[in-house]
Amino acid sequence: MIAERLQKLRNLMRKEKIQAYVIPSTDAHASEYVPAVWQRRAWISGFDGSAGDVIVTLDKAGLWTDSRYFLQAEAQLKGTGIDLYKIGVPGMPDMLQFLKQELKAGEAVGIDPKVISYRQAARWLKELGSSGIKIKFIEENLIDAIWDDQPEMPLEPIMVWEEKYAGESVQSKLERIRQKMAEEGVQTHVLTMLDAIAWTFNIRSKDVDYNPVAIAYAIITQDEAELFVHKKKVTRKVKKHLKGLVKIRAYEDFRKRLPKLAKKKTRVWLEDESVNYWVVMLLQKRCDLLFKRSMVTEFKAIKNATELGGFQACHIRDGVAMVKFLKWLEESVPQGEVTEMSAAAKLEALRAEQKLFQGLSFETISSYNEHGAIVHYTSSPETDVELKAPGIYLIDSGGHYLDGTTDITRTIALGQPTDEQKDRFTRVLKGHIDLAMASFPVGTQGIQLDTIARKPLWDIGLNYGHGTGHGVGTFLNVHEGPQGISYYRGFGVALQPGMVCSNEPGYYKAGAYGMRVENLIVVTKDEEKSNDEWQFLKFYDLTLCPIDVTLVEKSMLTPQEVAYLNAYHQKVYDTLAPFLKKEEKNWLREKTRPV
Amino acid sequence: MIAERLQKLRNLMRKEKIQAYVIPSTDAHASEYVPAVWQRRAWISGFDGSAGDVIVTLDKAGLWTDSRYFLQAEAQLKGTGIDLYKIGVPGMPDMLQFLKQELKAGEAVGIDPKVISYRQAARWLKELGSSGIKIKFIEENLIDAIWDDQPEMPLEPIMVWEEKYAGESVQSKLERIRQKMAEEGVQTHVLTMLDAIAWTFNIRSKDVDYNPVAIAYAIITQDEAELFVHKKKVTRKVKKHLKGLVKIRAYEDFRKRLPKLAKKKTRVWLEDESVNYWVVMLLQKRCDLLFKRSMVTEFKAIKNATELGGFQACHIRDGVAMVKFLKWLEESVPQGEVTEMSAAAKLEALRAEQKLFQGLSFETISSYNEHGAIVHYTSSPETDVELKAPGIYLIDSGGHYLDGTTDITRTIALGQPTDEQKDRFTRVLKGHIDLAMASFPVGTQGIQLDTIARKPLWDIGLNYGHGTGHGVGTFLNVHEGPQGISYYRGFGVALQPGMVCSNEPGYYKAGAYGMRVENLIVVTKDEEKSNDEWQFLKFYDLTLCPIDVTLVEKSMLTPQEVAYLNAYHQKVYDTLAPFLKKEEKNWLREKTRPV
Repeated sequence: MIAERLQKLRNLMRKEKIQAYVIPSTDAHASEYVPAVWQRRAWISGFDGSAGDVIVTLDKAGLWTDSRYFLQAEAQLKGTGIDLYKIGVPGMPDMLQFLKQELKAGEAVGIDPKVISYRQAARWLKELGSSGIKIKFIEENLIDAIWDDQPEMPLEPIMVWEEKYAGESVQSKLERIRQKMAEEGVQTHVLTMLDAIAWTFNIRSKDVDYNPVAIAYAIITQDEAELFVHKKKVTRKVKKHLKGLVKIRAYEDFRKRLPKLAKKKTRVWLEDESVNYWVVMLLQKRCDLLFKRSMVTEFKAIKNATELGGFQACHIRDGVAMVKFLKWLEESVPQGEVTEMSAAAKLEALRAEQKLFQGLSFETISSYNEHGAIVHYTSSPETDVELKAPGIYLIDSGGHYLDGTTDITRTIALGQPTDEQKDRFTRVLKGHIDLAMASFPVGTQGIQLDTIARKPLWDIGLNYGHGTGHGVGTFLNVHEGPQGISYYRGFGVALQPGMVCSNEPGYYKAGAYGMRVENLIVVTKDEEKSNDEWQFLKFYDLTLCPIDVTLVEKSMLTPQEVAYLNAYHQKVYDTLAPFLKKEEKNWLREKTRPV
Repeated sequence: MIAERLQKLRNLMRKEKIQAYVIPSTDAHASEYVPAVWQRRAWISGFDGSAGDVIVTLDKAGLWTDSRYFLQAEAQLKGTGIDLYKIGVPGMPDMLQFLKQELKAGEAVGIDPKVISYRQAARWLKELGSSGIKIKFIEENLIDAIWDDQPEMPLEPIMVWEEKYAGESVQSKLERIRQKMAEEGVQTHVLTMLDAIAWTFNIRSKDVDYNPVAIAYAIITQDEAELFVHKKKVTRKVKKHLKGLVKIRAYEDFRKRLPKLAKKKTRVWLEDESVNYWVVMLLQKRCDLLFKRSMVTEFKAIKNATELGGFQACHIRDGVAMVKFLKWLEESVPQGEVTEMSAAAKLEALRAEQKLFQGLSFETISSYNEHGAIVHYTSSPETDVELKAPGIYLIDSGGHYLDGTTDITRTIALGQPTDEQKDRFTRVLKGHIDLAMASFPVGTQGIQLDTIARKPLWDIGLNYGHGTGHGVGTFLNVHEGPQGISYYRGFGVALQPGMVCSNEPGYYKAGAYGMRVENLIVVTKDEEKSNDEWQFLKFYDLTLCPIDVTLVEKSMLTPQEVAYLNAYHQKVYDTLAPFLKKEEKNWLREKTRPV
């Protein structure tokens, strides 16, 4: 099947006179999660992980993905004729090196300019150009041309995200955007990221699994705002909501609109890290382009008081669902009736009972023992296993609510944990607590704090291969920038009051078990520590759910860490108890007793 | 005097038809410390701090410097007609904003292209260009044109840095450079940084205070290496040393040589962060330029076994000088005969007694009480004070030896320290020790470790306004890249075995006292912690000198920190004792007793 698809693609490539064709994972909106209609890389290769790019030449094909997906990609590529190129493994050529090896000077690489970012295209043009290899940007996507049963564009209606949740009107957001545009001397700002558009216009939809966004573009000038979206998605309520502020245009009309901007000799602000090369191609000849992070990316990251109130409120409801789930788990596992998949389903059902629930914020990771060591594991009927003692169960999950988004991981010992497991879990928890307790001066970047969460593992030669924290949207994408608490993202971005991040150190023993403790935290001023010379910030815990203390070796905790853990548990009990039934309350009291 | 100089400059500016002229702090070699002949900014402004740039317009003049120099600049600029622009203070225009405010479209800024880096010039061309302001690059420096008694070019002879210290021949270094050039497909590499040239050719000189470098350029191709240096500096020994490997050309001939390179349509590797714009101007039209960090910058940072042996050996001699100094200090201060300046002179004399000593590696910071809170304080006859109890004395100093370079800071309590002083010093020491004890995975950058040294201060709302560590050359510049242990330099550079850094957290209470503990440390493999999954690195302490434990509040240290401090002191005693006289040995035994 894959072979047949590759054959069709190669026939088209010959017609287009290109010797290679690139099929990246992303879409025209630089989405991390891509709607089904644009999951072209999965269709051409059979590999359906969240990250991975494919290059097809006339006689070879390769998939580039990172260590999270090595095992899955090996399995899914078997027999397809597509080779796996492991990113980060010494000696493996990267995509550019591969193209330089496989193509001769004068030959051409084809790519859909909508699915490559400006930054990457600029680098490729320079690097391939120096080897005499051309890039042919082909507007019609070659996969779309051969994909017979390609899904339709999603047409779910757009919903208005009410101001009582957003805390700021569209008018006010547009004013702030236009103020920044004026400061930079630009007349026009083009938005292409779906979450940035959803934030700006206070709209939500269901076009991408787990991401409550609508497929759209937007153009904002000092006088006008245009939203390009499929008209069938626009309800009467949405029209009323945007009336007088925003002109609604057809999604396809964006293509015609761009050259008109170019005619005006306007100065246009584009976000270089996300804008696709197609937009740049259509504007660059006649516009003056400013490449800079969008002010919307920065505005969106700093939650207003209403949003922060919503985050706290939805974390109470999410905590109630988690407590009911953990109690159920403890009672049901010994009956021998719980599997990874059934546990995930139970938790989803409990969340769905909560007010304002809108769906999961990402695919639940429900993983037992060795599955927990696969950081992005998804349980499927082929891999599903029963949970039983002794064992380690890791569940990473989250929900969207109208007033906020949650993302929580808990690690549960089924039966008696080993000394090694207690040691490792206690180190993960120490890192989690030390980060949660940290005070840091204004101006500090996430990369400076990431180390705090790793230190207890580093001390014995261990580590974890992912970042410690990511930004989280308000009833929006569960991963958002610009900040991170990480060694590989969020460079140069100072943490600011109102930013919501995850705090999720972990430890993974391949073939044995995985452990992670994750709360969402929000940056606030540390009034107590601030002084004339240094203004300090700290974190406030949003997530409310007990941590399994049977995995804790208390002697490894400092008195401050013990005090933090006990105070956290007290807060969890005090906040959630009013919403629990008597036996749930009793269970939670047991689980939140001081260590 | 300054007014007269500005008048002369403005007359020249009118002739050149420019409305502003920029006088940066640096020279054609991106030097941090500049030879007297090129200290143009100090001459035009009267401000002689190490960092600060001047812009003169037809009716205004401004100096831009950072917080280290606010007080000094205010004092030195008084009455000159030059305004101080404080970098980093909100609301203060930066140089670009100032130029945009003061100049109209169509007007021009003049600058000597040799004293502005390619990176900065590219940014200025873009930013000023968008406001219609031109940059006129004027090869003849306008300050040189009006500076009557400008010092001569330094003509100190070049010395050969013997292979027994360098650990690698010039031939081998050139081979490694050419290998990297071949990998990048370049035919030519131009070196402009003086320390990179000194490293490559195993030469040293005395053209810049404290930096044992020769003023030079170099061009390396696959077949040839050319060193452009004043011929009077080249001794017979140097000629013999470079014979058959390197052609020696006159320094001035570099100007003629560049256009010849351009004729060859060669691909030339330039280091974008340091190369001056003049070199780029002369090459860019006809050469293909690769802008990338020089491989020499990376090679130079990783010390070979011979250099590491030299670092250890010179730190023993330097430690002996420091011990003699601290003993002398303790005995002499009560006699009322020691001042900041006399103490610095005593320490220099003691270093000069040591074998292989070549001079100080930077100007000694010898500072008592409130002077210690001025991070870059230099004692002068106007500020010199007697050291007396009670008080805090901070001395930051270092030496060049043929086999290595030292940089050490110790903080000494004269008399009984206060509880606050002990608390602050113990926090600084905890940070210093925690960093020294850290193990971290291969790939870790300095910015990830910087936090470890700050954490004990952050915990009570304090901090220090400088990086924790900088790279150090081998009998070369005491500040070198590319790595740092810092929140503001060394981004993206992983620490590697063989890199030497400083470890120097501090605390400064304005108007009261300053404290800092600084050792040099070298990155090594942590064999004990490395395992199948993660390779770990750690630090090894090079500096050997007791830390004043009268400032330590032991109850604030963890058992691990106490063990480290005691083991460090044991190592200091065991290593230095064989080189000390009996009473010095006894003194050191007292000072290194376990706490």
